[in-house]
Amino acid sequence: MLKQRDELDLVLHALSDPSRRTIVERLSRGPASVSELANPMSISLPAVVQHIQVLETSGLVESEKVGRVRTCRLQPATLRPVERWIGDRRSAWERRLDRLGDYLDDR
Amino acid sequence: MLKQRDELDLVLHALSDPSRRTIVERLSRGPASVSELANPMSISLPAVVQHIQVLETSGLVESEKVGRVRTCRLQPATLRPVERWIGDRRSAWERRLDRLGDYLDDR
Repeated sequence: MLKQRDELDLVLHALSDPSRRTIVERLSRGPASVSELANPMSISLPAVVQHIQVLETSGLVESEKVGRVRTCRLQPATLRPVERWIGDRRSAWERRLDRLGDYLDDR
Repeated sequence: MLKQRDELDLVLHALSDPSRRTIVERLSRGPASVSELANPMSISLPAVVQHIQVLETSGLVESEKVGRVRTCRLQPATLRPVERWIGDRRSAWERRLDRLGDYLDDR
């Protein structure tokens, strides 16, 4: 449980920055090199590299260096615990509304 | 677009802390007073109040004070843009895999 909490912390923190979400958006359409990721962005290459490191620490992105080119890939399975956590909260809320409806119907 | 990005920043940042997720979990089962939220937690009341303020800034929680009791309520609609963003990334990734499958079938 503690382990999953730590993972959620890291993934949600990684996604809370708009530049990192831009990188994830790009990678959801396929792998890209660091310079392909940096080119359309209005921030410096070192800043992009730092964002990629945060995404790698969270497990959302993996990268591999071949020659002088580092290629980044999305690990979409890492998004699943976040989806599940949000879905669980929503269904708890909906169950509550259903019970409230039943209670009002019974009166 | 910028507005939605700001909202996503705030909501994802708010959810990246385990104490704040504990508060959202509790509130997904129904409204609660600040002391009801604080009692089962191992952190100080002022720390809980600070976490509630971050959740209110993000729009995830609303609170109302009647007499001396402040009651907090989840605003589950605020979770929707996060769900949508993650779902959009996942479907972009799945479309990519489908196209890759079609390409390999055609060879």
